[in-house]
Amino acid sequence: MLRETTNQLDSLFYPKSVAVVGASPSKNGRANQWINGYIKLGFQGKIFPVHPSAETILGFKSYPSVRDIPEEVDLVIFSVPFAVVLQVMQDCVEKGVKYVHLFTAGFSETGQEDQADLERQLLEIAQKGGVRLIGPNCMGLYCPESGLTWSEDFPKTAGPVGFVSQSGQLASHFIWDGAMDGIQFSKVISFGNACDLQSHDFLNYLGQDEKTEILGSYIEGLKDGRAFFEFARNITRKKPFVVWKGGQTEGGARATQSHTASIAGSQKIWQSLCQQTGIVSVDSMEELISTTVALKKMPLPRGTNVALVGGAGGGSVTMTDAAEKEGLKVPHLAEETQRKLAEFIPISGNSVRNPLDIGFSNVYRDENDFVRLFKLLNDDPIINAVIFFRGLRRGRGSRKDMNLLTSLMLKGMEVIEKPVYIVLPGNRTLEGEALREEAQDKYNNIGLPTFPSFTLAARVISNLSQYYNYLFAHGF
Amino acid sequence: MLRETTNQLDSLFYPKSVAVVGASPSKNGRANQWINGYIKLGFQGKIFPVHPSAETILGFKSYPSVRDIPEEVDLVIFSVPFAVVLQVMQDCVEKGVKYVHLFTAGFSETGQEDQADLERQLLEIAQKGGVRLIGPNCMGLYCPESGLTWSEDFPKTAGPVGFVSQSGQLASHFIWDGAMDGIQFSKVISFGNACDLQSHDFLNYLGQDEKTEILGSYIEGLKDGRAFFEFARNITRKKPFVVWKGGQTEGGARATQSHTASIAGSQKIWQSLCQQTGIVSVDSMEELISTTVALKKMPLPRGTNVALVGGAGGGSVTMTDAAEKEGLKVPHLAEETQRKLAEFIPISGNSVRNPLDIGFSNVYRDENDFVRLFKLLNDDPIINAVIFFRGLRRGRGSRKDMNLLTSLMLKGMEVIEKPVYIVLPGNRTLEGEALREEAQDKYNNIGLPTFPSFTLAARVISNLSQYYNYLFAHGF
Repeated sequence: MLRETTNQLDSLFYPKSVAVVGASPSKNGRANQWINGYIKLGFQGKIFPVHPSAETILGFKSYPSVRDIPEEVDLVIFSVPFAVVLQVMQDCVEKGVKYVHLFTAGFSETGQEDQADLERQLLEIAQKGGVRLIGPNCMGLYCPESGLTWSEDFPKTAGPVGFVSQSGQLASHFIWDGAMDGIQFSKVISFGNACDLQSHDFLNYLGQDEKTEILGSYIEGLKDGRAFFEFARNITRKKPFVVWKGGQTEGGARATQSHTASIAGSQKIWQSLCQQTGIVSVDSMEELISTTVALKKMPLPRGTNVALVGGAGGGSVTMTDAAEKEGLKVPHLAEETQRKLAEFIPISGNSVRNPLDIGFSNVYRDENDFVRLFKLLNDDPIINAVIFFRGLRRGRGSRKDMNLLTSLMLKGMEVIEKPVYIVLPGNRTLEGEALREEAQDKYNNIGLPTFPSFTLAARVISNLSQYYNYLFAHGF
Repeated sequence: MLRETTNQLDSLFYPKSVAVVGASPSKNGRANQWINGYIKLGFQGKIFPVHPSAETILGFKSYPSVRDIPEEVDLVIFSVPFAVVLQVMQDCVEKGVKYVHLFTAGFSETGQEDQADLERQLLEIAQKGGVRLIGPNCMGLYCPESGLTWSEDFPKTAGPVGFVSQSGQLASHFIWDGAMDGIQFSKVISFGNACDLQSHDFLNYLGQDEKTEILGSYIEGLKDGRAFFEFARNITRKKPFVVWKGGQTEGGARATQSHTASIAGSQKIWQSLCQQTGIVSVDSMEELISTTVALKKMPLPRGTNVALVGGAGGGSVTMTDAAEKEGLKVPHLAEETQRKLAEFIPISGNSVRNPLDIGFSNVYRDENDFVRLFKLLNDDPIINAVIFFRGLRRGRGSRKDMNLLTSLMLKGMEVIEKPVYIVLPGNRTLEGEALREEAQDKYNNIGLPTFPSFTLAARVISNLSQYYNYLFAHGF
């Protein structure tokens, strides 16, 4: 079968017309979520609901079958009972549809032979008729620029992040939760069982897509590992490629079979693949979001040596442990830096070595001292990045304290070129949480990212310094 | 030097009289925090402020020196300038004081020889005079039963958890944050540089203390490793012993020197010590709290095989990965269990193997089905524990949904004896966070613990099943 070249997928992401088979005259019809979403996001193409008997659905004229639609159809979404899937696919072939997105689930991922066979028959009909398939068992496409979406709650604003996901649920969470950290998307694809179009087909498209500057993916199985490897090796020199691999463990791999009928492969093979290709590997939604945020807003750290600012006492010790367990180093600052810090930071109760335990000084109250500290960290040849973690805890949790700290931070950022990772942990009280949100907004408004936990910030720096090393080692 | 036997520390935790040297007639005097706290927590003994010139402080008659106090003094807290520390210590000796708590910092932890020498001189005076020291560089004692505290914000209610900490900051956070998860304390000790009384002195006391059922500790260095080892090996068969070891990494070990002048030792030695003694080792405040909560409210898991309930699709796969990376197993359920589940859970979009991906069934709506599920999990011979994780996300984040889910959960808990770990992750919106708090209260009110993240719940199960194995292997 002839593979599409990737730019042909343009008519998938910017279709002139979409048919929705399984749309329903009742208000809560499942397939209506696409139509409702398209309306909300301002889709400019034509929408054709397909239903056996309805006259109109959500204000659009409805047709009894895809074949009855009087105009060309670029994309068909379908959510129909098993009994009719083959017939509907045949209709799409006869109509000359370009793409079919199969929302319907219950095929090879069930582990049952008859259901897997039904998936194979669907694919066979599609391939013979020249129709390309997305899915089955997936949410499909989100492209805010053209107005495609599977949820009317997704943001209308487009951005530089492209995401290809074998899980619609995780893709949805990335879109929703990412929005709270200022992440916006060019295109997101939930592609499920991938019986026809594969992750690398979508990735190739995003790799060439000018609107996509950062690539991300959640994948469970790689049906064409070689193609994925080649793609990754070529793209990472141009765009960062962040991948969350599901099914790395034995149980996880079993679960991918139940989820998308994927054969997941082992953790070791995956790690080695990442090392050889420059993929930034992440392991959780929080890590995916924080890594993307850091890539978008901060220069890459040029090494693993971090300065820890803001902790105190046992907190400093345990943050250092946490950082080093994530692969970072917390070395003593250069002697000159320590000497200059000691000029304005008293010895009792403090340490200027690193971690910087300087709560019994004026640094967190006095703009001059704070800026001096950041300037010295910027000039210290040993340090590659700074983690700033001063929680809004009891005793220093007031709005006044928060305002002071953010204003100091904004001044400090003016004199430092190294990446600074501000940790703003969630607060266990509603009042504290409201304060945290305010502080985050202030930082985000001037382009400074924040991270919800210290460990996460440490892991992100570790991830990104590895990516920096990869680029450096390959001369990119 | 003769070591005190532990029950003698009773007069430290239940003193008849306390003197505070460095108390101040000005409202914000640092040392006044102890006096204010004692008042707030209802301390029944006598309080003697010591100040060069003040007549009264916070309503108590003040004395120019400890020697001038006309009655016996069990405990002296002092926070005074370096210039006078030796004199104040000499006064305590002459007065016949039993215990001195040195809040003052800036001794051996500074790494400066003259300051370390001052600490040695203090100790020498105390030892010659028969005075036992807590500290220097520490917050001292919290014992809600007797009214001792270093913060007036600490809860007045006592509970079964004893905690011995080389960091006052981390001890404070444990007391504050633990309270939100229903953890209450018998005694907490912040002991800093430990120039005299060591962690194992306090631990021995808590080990014998009837009010203490669960022991915890944050430690950086072990000056007497053998005593600690013996203590741990003996106590774990009677009371669980949860330890957070600071300074496990190279950088962390350097930081412990700056913090409490401790020599931390390596991660490997620590892990092996935990294996030999049955210590439950934790690595963060969140893990310390969640492990303590689980010990208090749940039976120990009798193995690492968990059933995952509540996830869906990619979330199920990635939860499985996260669980297995923490050392758990997510095996397929027994065939009989799967067969019985399939009787009421349809195949399309679901999986009854484990992880249980059953969002397209009635389980999360129908009490009968939910209870049936929990009964089957209870009877499944393969499964040791259940993790229930169904976040209050968009689309299912309403109060109605939350109420339904908690009421189902309460019914489900009636038919299961295995430990169940309910994950209630923090929510990124204030509205969602308020809902989460409500749900947590409902669970906690009937004695069910909740955990803030899936990974944390998995780690706690992993920790506690190791403890179970240790007890089992040693015939306890």
